[in-house]
Amino acid sequence: MEIKEISKIKIRFNEVDSLGIVWHGHYIAYFEEGREHFGLKHGISYLDVKSHGLATPIVESVCKHKLPLKYGDIATIETTFVDSSANKLIFTYKIFNPEGKVVCTGKTVQVFIDEKGILVLNIPPLFEAWKKKVGLLAK
Amino acid sequence: MEIKEISKIKIRFNEVDSLGIVWHGHYIAYFEEGREHFGLKHGISYLDVKSHGLATPIVESVCKHKLPLKYGDIATIETTFVDSSANKLIFTYKIFNPEGKVVCTGKTVQVFIDEKGILVLNIPPLFEAWKKKVGLLAK
Amino acid sequence: MEIKEISKIKIRFNEVDSLGIVWHGHYIAYFEEGREHFGLKHGISYLDVKSHGLATPIVESVCKHKLPLKYGDIATIETTFVDSSANKLIFTYKIFNPEGKVVCTGKTVQVFIDEKGILVLNIPPLFEAWKKKVGLLAK
Amino acid sequence: MEIKEISKIKIRFNEVDSLGIVWHGHYIAYFEEGREHFGLKHGISYLDVKSHGLATPIVESVCKHKLPLKYGDIATIETTFVDSSANKLIFTYKIFNPEGKVVCTGKTVQVFIDEKGILVLNIPPLFEAWKKKVGLLAK
Repeated sequence: MEIKEISKIKIRFNEVDSLGIVWHGHYIAYFEEGREHFGLKHGISYLDVKSHGLATPIVESVCKHKLPLKYGDIATIETTFVDSSANKLIFTYKIFNPEGKVVCTGKTVQVFIDEKGILVLNIPPLFEAWKKKVGLLAK
Repeated sequence: MEIKEISKIKIRFNEVDSLGIVWHGHYIAYFEEGREHFGLKHGISYLDVKSHGLATPIVESVCKHKLPLKYGDIATIETTFVDSSANKLIFTYKIFNPEGKVVCTGKTVQVFIDEKGILVLNIPPLFEAWKKKVGLLAK
Repeated sequence: MEIKEISKIKIRFNEVDSLGIVWHGHYIAYFEEGREHFGLKHGISYLDVKSHGLATPIVESVCKHKLPLKYGDIATIETTFVDSSANKLIFTYKIFNPEGKVVCTGKTVQVFIDEKGILVLNIPPLFEAWKKKVGLLAK
Repeated sequence: MEIKEISKIKIRFNEVDSLGIVWHGHYIAYFEEGREHFGLKHGISYLDVKSHGLATPIVESVCKHKLPLKYGDIATIETTFVDSSANKLIFTYKIFNPEGKVVCTGKTVQVFIDEKGILVLNIPPLFEAWKKKVGLLAK
């Protein structure tokens, strides 16, 4: 099962090179933007996690580029939470240009760590409650 | 005499620190965003200048901070071209938070250089024509 | 067959968050740093490619994180060119912390495009000559 | 009276534009790098300040550019603490290229705020003790 969220981002002048094309490294920030937008909408944002004494560092990110984005483009980020039995936050991304064509696809994987930086092996109550709330686990 | 232009910018998640406050260095990019928006509106953008074999490197920038911006804020950038007899592009900036309060003020100064990187001492025809077009010089 | 190159990078204060840990998106820049260092050493840098009327945009990047890097760390980037029959530049990366432990591994894939942005389908003479020079193709 | 500190920085590939010249906004990060290096050497780093329940946001930054830095340059940052009777951290900067020529000069001003974000009007004990330690105030 998946949960999708849409956000928009406007490409900045300092994000493009002399040809007006976005530098590939910025897409990682765009994914983050989409992910945090998702988190705010669905109650699993950076601050929600932090308030439970947890952090969710990225352990894997993938980006596949199809088309460039240009200065001034208003791009659409589609962020999808991918449910799994693993104790991980897995998101996939599609970014679309103003014409609606896919610019890139991506994926990130996050784990839960506690305040000492130790990997949380069992599902955190926050995450379990969240999964129930959004219908990914039976209540 | 001055020419003003207004643009908007949305603060990204990767631009804020753990307290949700924008890192001060990003304001230089926001000024650039305002300046390029001005350039596109008034025909003196990066590409306009480049098409005349010129570039306009920044030789001075100043930023004075009054209030922080936070993640998700839609800030307003007021970019003002300040006319002078010097062969320079002088802009001042005011950035406002969503409540309309001044977040920071700033200034940048740019000179004209040619394709060899040599400082252009006389007013470039592009700049003279532009000043006439926008009413800063008699036609 | 593989060709390896080692470079060093010192972690900047603006690259870490409030806990002193590098933001994951910066690793894409570190990979680029290793790749360009490789290019300069082996004659296939950004400028070498550009002088032949070509560019090599990234079409895929992957990063897997094992350990954090901290402010002030001098990290070691091991950049490896992975030969293939495809008309692509494939690099893998390992970044080590000052204690010699693997911080992350990664991969990038680049294609060749010409000055019009068109994908180059046949092996460019530059790339063929380079492969011969470094012993990846029979002369 | 002034206290000076020298640090080195190597220019990254992602910090330069297509001409190989550093984007002006990065100098703010270089100043920060010099400032934090100073802080670590002299016991007034980010963490020293934080451990006293304080933060030192930038309220003003100025940068004047003379020459460009290029990819791969190892630049020298000279960071100088400028003593004043004001309850502020004032630093000036000179950045030199590998040939020893001045690339830019700059200045930053920081104030002290407490954990609630309130401006600290009286000199914080941390700062007073530090001034005595480094000889800027009589013990």
